[in-house]
Amino acid sequence: MPVETKYFEINTEGNCDVLDITDYISDALDESEISNGTITVFVPGSTAGVTTIEYESGAVRDLKEVFSRLVPENEYYAHNARWGDGNGHSHIRASILGPSLSIPFSSSRLILGTWQQVILVDFDNRQRKREIILQIIGE
Amino acid sequence: MPVETKYFEINTEGNCDVLDITDYISDALDESEISNGTITVFVPGSTAGVTTIEYESGAVRDLKEVFSRLVPENEYYAHNARWGDGNGHSHIRASILGPSLSIPFSSSRLILGTWQQVILVDFDNRQRKREIILQIIGE
Amino acid sequence: MPVETKYFEINTEGNCDVLDITDYISDALDESEISNGTITVFVPGSTAGVTTIEYESGAVRDLKEVFSRLVPENEYYAHNARWGDGNGHSHIRASILGPSLSIPFSSSRLILGTWQQVILVDFDNRQRKREIILQIIGE
Repeated sequence: MPVETKYFEINTEGNCDVLDITDYISDALDESEISNGTITVFVPGSTAGVTTIEYESGAVRDLKEVFSRLVPENEYYAHNARWGDGNGHSHIRASILGPSLSIPFSSSRLILGTWQQVILVDFDNRQRKREIILQIIGE
Repeated sequence: MPVETKYFEINTEGNCDVLDITDYISDALDESEISNGTITVFVPGSTAGVTTIEYESGAVRDLKEVFSRLVPENEYYAHNARWGDGNGHSHIRASILGPSLSIPFSSSRLILGTWQQVILVDFDNRQRKREIILQIIGE
Repeated sequence: MPVETKYFEINTEGNCDVLDITDYISDALDESEISNGTITVFVPGSTAGVTTIEYESGAVRDLKEVFSRLVPENEYYAHNARWGDGNGHSHIRASILGPSLSIPFSSSRLILGTWQQVILVDFDNRQRKREIILQIIGE
């Protein structure tokens, strides 16, 4: 059974940077010999996550605002007390959002809503280069 | 390798409507020729999500209450300021919950806990007809 | 197409106990004849979830603290009012975190970040023995 494991690299600004990665995923499907199946989008690392959103500047700003309010940067974190790297909030936000997303595709096209894009959210407190794994399983 | 992509439609009340969709998924497995594998439940659209819960009226009410408290409808959302459709909170709730759920099945039966049901949560601020994708991969 | 469905059992302390289950998953891949593909980690039950974190005592404590703050144990829950089992908060936390995680692997190794471990979070309000499903699909 065919499995293809691909990846791409992307630079982020950190600090809850929200990046639309839909085109990378669509391109991977275009190049794949598998036309029907599931693609797993996975971000290695413990300070970033993936999900979907309507990628327009308002909703993107709102998402950042809600994470800032629910898991604020400037609170006490035991992680920061131990390691001094100041990204305790980043770890918790990433754990809650999750590093993985499984999306079905059919005839080489992602089955997404019209206004639904796949996003990487980088919660770390500095610029990062991220490697995103795209694993395609199907027929 | 066999892949089956199915879907069903379901009407929702929106406004954090929580619907038990377990039977739709079990029915899809009953009709499938694939008896062991993973089923991906995916909701296209950026204002709904999927997860599991003990589907009883108390827990369902609590889930709505917690989302109302954590991501309230009546706050400022930049999405609403731009688009005027009043569902800024719906987008953020959906991004946090996530649109996708992967569930293993064996001998054509979902491997769920006794008190665990699969739910669709429609966060939009109006009634919707949703199309839910069920993609089955296995042998 | 090969599918392998495995499981392991693990004892938890409940009350937001956070357990590193990465080695169980790596061991399952070591024993598997499938060397490239996706492993789905699934916890049956409606009061536990799975995600990833940098598994060090600070971040683990922070995760518990954030869940205690966002979905407190000692609030009113309709679930508790109906059933009297006192774990209303556990159900809601589990629904938000989610019961499922899909992780790609290649050459029999999980594709995780260096500081990223897979965790089970048991939100129930008592000790539990949990059965975790590991389903491997690939080639």
